[in-house]
Amino acid sequence: MKPLDYPSAVLELIAALKRMPGVGSRGAERLALWFLQHGRSDADRLASALTAATGGVGICPECGFFSESGQSCAACADMTRQRGVFCVVEQPTDVLPIERCGTYRGLYHCLGGKISPLDGIVPEDLAVESLLARVRRQPGCEVILAVGSDVEGEVTALYLAEHLASLDCTVTRLAQGMPAGAGLGHADRITLTRALEGRRSL
Amino acid sequence: MKPLDYPSAVLELIAALKRMPGVGSRGAERLALWFLQHGRSDADRLASALTAATGGVGICPECGFFSESGQSCAACADMTRQRGVFCVVEQPTDVLPIERCGTYRGLYHCLGGKISPLDGIVPEDLAVESLLARVRRQPGCEVILAVGSDVEGEVTALYLAEHLASLDCTVTRLAQGMPAGAGLGHADRITLTRALEGRRSL
Repeated sequence: MKPLDYPSAVLELIAALKRMPGVGSRGAERLALWFLQHGRSDADRLASALTAATGGVGICPECGFFSESGQSCAACADMTRQRGVFCVVEQPTDVLPIERCGTYRGLYHCLGGKISPLDGIVPEDLAVESLLARVRRQPGCEVILAVGSDVEGEVTALYLAEHLASLDCTVTRLAQGMPAGAGLGHADRITLTRALEGRRSL
Repeated sequence: MKPLDYPSAVLELIAALKRMPGVGSRGAERLALWFLQHGRSDADRLASALTAATGGVGICPECGFFSESGQSCAACADMTRQRGVFCVVEQPTDVLPIERCGTYRGLYHCLGGKISPLDGIVPEDLAVESLLARVRRQPGCEVILAVGSDVEGEVTALYLAEHLASLDCTVTRLAQGMPAGAGLGHADRITLTRALEGRRSL
């Protein structure tokens, strides 16, 4: 007697679902069975969406944000945005959190990571040259360094500031201090030190 | 200035991922970005697997378990299995848990649910007629009622036992009692009552 198992197409679906981050063996099996029992139209929809997204979504050649394949992204193409302000972020996924604040009206520049020698990421791996080229084309512009406030982010910010110093631009950094709604008791020492250093008169 | 958002193909991917059970808005966005940033080959693999599974996986016309489209399932096609034992379960997803015990060597029969008037499920919605037909073709067979031990499962078991009574077969029910590894302190009253009623001499 052969031990019974799912048809091979179901096993392959379980294996493919398991590749997703945060989905384990049991979760992948449950999802696969859900697709087969209740979600056949959802399965077709997801299959088309995956194909469309991997085939039709690219990276903006200007700033590195997601765009329709081979085209500039919606931000770079929007001529009503301030052309002389560049918000430099690590990843394209960092763009929308800033955009959702609703107050920023300039352009973006995605580095594609942060300097991290331990992970083998050196400045040459990041979109630094293209940032310098954009700044050179916009004399008098402002460059907002919106990289993370961890060690690698600080190193990246310092590196960029050094290379931008000789160009005709203002370089700023996101304020560091207490997060909104947090009590003093929960703040770590470095956050509190930076909040003190950056104190402002009321 | 138009508020910036993901390209429409990414938004559609997020929407399609969000249809999966247990995946919310944030989770769907994170998965979509993971597919775009790290998992493009995984995305293609999942798309193919979804298409293959919805197109190539059907339901065994004999027992209701998953099978290659239009074919008998691996259990019904396996001639080394005992043909005179039918394990009746609610859903095709209940088959593999039994199979994984490694001790059952008979066939299966998936009802497709359990009698539940509150949910509008009446006996006519379940694969009862096909079960009776299989039993008639195998005089002297055993029918193991492996439906759940909740109220709807009990009602379904009683209904099946009644309709099988006039046929040439033995009807059995899964034992009810203490789950493996459980202490008495955690058992509910009904479980303990059933365990007492079903006590066996050592």
